[in-house]
Amino acid sequence: MATITHNKIFAGTFIHSKTREKLEYLHNTAIAVSAEGVIVAICSKDDSQAAVQAVLKETQWPGDTETLILGDKQFFFPGLIDTHVHASQYPNVGIFGKSTLLDWLNTYTFPLESSLANPSAAHRVYTACVRRTLAHGTTAAAYYATQSATSTAVLADVCLHLGQRALVGRVCMDQPDMCPEYYRDESPAAALAASVESIEYIRQRDPLFDLVTPVLTPRFAPSCSPRAMADLAALAARHNLPIQTHISENTSECALVGRLFPDLSSYSAVYHAHNLLTPRTILAHAIHLSDAEAALLASNNCKISHCPCSNSALTSGAARVRWLWSHGLSIGLGTDMSGGYSPSILEAARHAALVSRHVAMHTADDAEKEGVKLTVDEVLYLATRGGADVIGMADRVGGFEVGKQWDAIHIQLATVDESGLRNDDELGGDAGNVDLFGTESWEEIVAKWLYNGDDRNCKKVWVKGRLVHQRR
Amino acid sequence: MATITHNKIFAGTFIHSKTREKLEYLHNTAIAVSAEGVIVAICSKDDSQAAVQAVLKETQWPGDTETLILGDKQFFFPGLIDTHVHASQYPNVGIFGKSTLLDWLNTYTFPLESSLANPSAAHRVYTACVRRTLAHGTTAAAYYATQSATSTAVLADVCLHLGQRALVGRVCMDQPDMCPEYYRDESPAAALAASVESIEYIRQRDPLFDLVTPVLTPRFAPSCSPRAMADLAALAARHNLPIQTHISENTSECALVGRLFPDLSSYSAVYHAHNLLTPRTILAHAIHLSDAEAALLASNNCKISHCPCSNSALTSGAARVRWLWSHGLSIGLGTDMSGGYSPSILEAARHAALVSRHVAMHTADDAEKEGVKLTVDEVLYLATRGGADVIGMADRVGGFEVGKQWDAIHIQLATVDESGLRNDDELGGDAGNVDLFGTESWEEIVAKWLYNGDDRNCKKVWVKGRLVHQRR
Repeated sequence: MATITHNKIFAGTFIHSKTREKLEYLHNTAIAVSAEGVIVAICSKDDSQAAVQAVLKETQWPGDTETLILGDKQFFFPGLIDTHVHASQYPNVGIFGKSTLLDWLNTYTFPLESSLANPSAAHRVYTACVRRTLAHGTTAAAYYATQSATSTAVLADVCLHLGQRALVGRVCMDQPDMCPEYYRDESPAAALAASVESIEYIRQRDPLFDLVTPVLTPRFAPSCSPRAMADLAALAARHNLPIQTHISENTSECALVGRLFPDLSSYSAVYHAHNLLTPRTILAHAIHLSDAEAALLASNNCKISHCPCSNSALTSGAARVRWLWSHGLSIGLGTDMSGGYSPSILEAARHAALVSRHVAMHTADDAEKEGVKLTVDEVLYLATRGGADVIGMADRVGGFEVGKQWDAIHIQLATVDESGLRNDDELGGDAGNVDLFGTESWEEIVAKWLYNGDDRNCKKVWVKGRLVHQRR
Repeated sequence: MATITHNKIFAGTFIHSKTREKLEYLHNTAIAVSAEGVIVAICSKDDSQAAVQAVLKETQWPGDTETLILGDKQFFFPGLIDTHVHASQYPNVGIFGKSTLLDWLNTYTFPLESSLANPSAAHRVYTACVRRTLAHGTTAAAYYATQSATSTAVLADVCLHLGQRALVGRVCMDQPDMCPEYYRDESPAAALAASVESIEYIRQRDPLFDLVTPVLTPRFAPSCSPRAMADLAALAARHNLPIQTHISENTSECALVGRLFPDLSSYSAVYHAHNLLTPRTILAHAIHLSDAEAALLASNNCKISHCPCSNSALTSGAARVRWLWSHGLSIGLGTDMSGGYSPSILEAARHAALVSRHVAMHTADDAEKEGVKLTVDEVLYLATRGGADVIGMADRVGGFEVGKQWDAIHIQLATVDESGLRNDDELGGDAGNVDLFGTESWEEIVAKWLYNGDDRNCKKVWVKGRLVHQRR
């Protein structure tokens, strides 16, 4: 994998989150990206050509530097970040029947994950998954592989090869009563050894964890022994690595945790007691938390992955994003494939807005009800800067600033002409499901993209300056 | 518009609803469709070629009759039916901010609808809308045009030209206090006259209402005078025409109806008092009904259009489909653009499944909770046979039986090869967002299509035997 390419200039309209509440629209702007994939200059002028000249002057790069200037109804958007996704479950997306979490694991999930101990099966599934998520503009993902260290190594290799930024976690699950005999770590010691093996494999392939970083991944409290949880926490501390797991997804699961850990006061307290609550810990779901638990997670500066498609599909519940924010927690979005049915973080953002409205429907106070709803700007913040913070990369990706890396999407939308027909041909083929009529404000263009956009609108996708996907 | 073409044979796998609970999978089957677009023979054999021979024998058609035999991972599905959609609002899809029904109407909707009194503006919007919905496999739609009879005539013409089966309604709205001065019928008499004009225009263009049928369309109780409602009901009775309106979408709207009609016991009672509850009445939303109202609607054999995308987007509420069914009501799906953000009935079906899970989350009893959830088979029933019944065409469309008309979609899905790459090229281009791995049962293939399918999977679409859309 060549991550170093050559200097490039991008120009046109750039849209990213200025704050959690507001997107910023940078028009007639040029951004210079170094051969190392880092943004080195940003200039805004009266038109895009003038902006390009300005960054050329600032960088002192030659006039023939490769330059991409976007046309009308096109913009650059930060790469989308998937903070919770099981790459190994990709073949099962859309298949969940009427199941809920615990029966879904046994019926659909464990048999599939276990089959990926075979490296060629793993390579096939992970390649399809990473290519698909890249096509949807996912430039970074926090992946669960499987319990097998071999399978996990394959996922790391696929991400490196295809150029997607990733946390890659071997799934620790050693609790004999809770994990099927055919698919579990044999002991806490075996779990620890396999996790160490996985870390060392990734270190060998990407020594600085430049693109792929190992992540300690106790599946969830019920599937891990106390010993294994504590060992993984110690390993994370020793190597300064992130941790990812699930919390409070489903009421039956919460009750199960209560039965398994009768001496601990809550699900969050279980992780706290085993040293798993750190500023680099990503907790998926966080639906049924108490105020005390939210406060505990916030005081440990833990990060939350909100997975609305999954939570609706598995009838898990509706996470209260505004309430989590009010506790000071940092939140990103996860597809949670295949509990979630969609590979798209744009779909997750859309569904986050819709689920917040379902939360609002059950909020009695009218003023509070309005406040509960998430706006277009807020769900796109979750998809980018929110996600970047959750995976510990807020200093590197999530928006367009000098010093950040060029993880970005070229978004292209089609327009309906005066006869009601579209300009797909001049855009190089089917430009997707969004029809612009030419009267929309930029805010409305972004809303239309959020609600009807798909991978067809992701014309090109870059990670760290490298072109990792383009529509033909 | 030429509706008569020539005899055709379709062969391969056909999937449609056998009952409300179960899809039926007809493999190695051939269906003969006459030049008039009617299914005249269906034969199933050991392979598709033998089935084609069998229908040729049964029909005594020549051996060179045009025949389409589908390959692997492809199937025919009945055309999808949109039982509630405002064609005039199409440019606004995805644009609703944090609004709810009543402010949404004034902010986003009335200004746009009013602008379509200009026929060329109307032609542009309706062409884009009908082409887009056809591309998603919508073969029949119950459309609201606008208050303008001229604009309504344009919509009827566009449907006839593009070949989509449609109910087309001029929107009646004459209540001065509730409708803006720039966009309303001047009086009950003017409202009646414009509705008659609209019916007669359509009769002139399609004398037997073969493809396009006029539908009486009082916007909703608050926007119509009692006189106008009663007059439209009488007109519907005189011409034996369908009626469409909205009911019980939002709690503020329900309270408003209570204030406007203090002598009537419920929203449903208002329509009942004005003779609008008939077996050909399509009521959109039906979210906040009481048991007594559901019983009243059922006793009048009214039909319900469930619009889950809209109801979530506008925070209207979550309709209880299982509960409506338990009252004996017949239900279909509506996109309700642009309260709903999506032109796709497949997306509506997906969201109907998800919304039913949100209803389940707030159902206390565990056994009942499971029952509330809608299955893949059930939401696809809603999208086809359910919709056909709601628009009064259950005898003509919605499934594959001899005597029914050929309103159908050719669904094509792509497969991931052993390297994790896709076979799009051999399928003629981007075959969409569904990745099959080859191990899926037919039930799982359909679930994958429901949850990740889009217009790219609709390779060809026919209405009454006429090819009305095909992917290039």
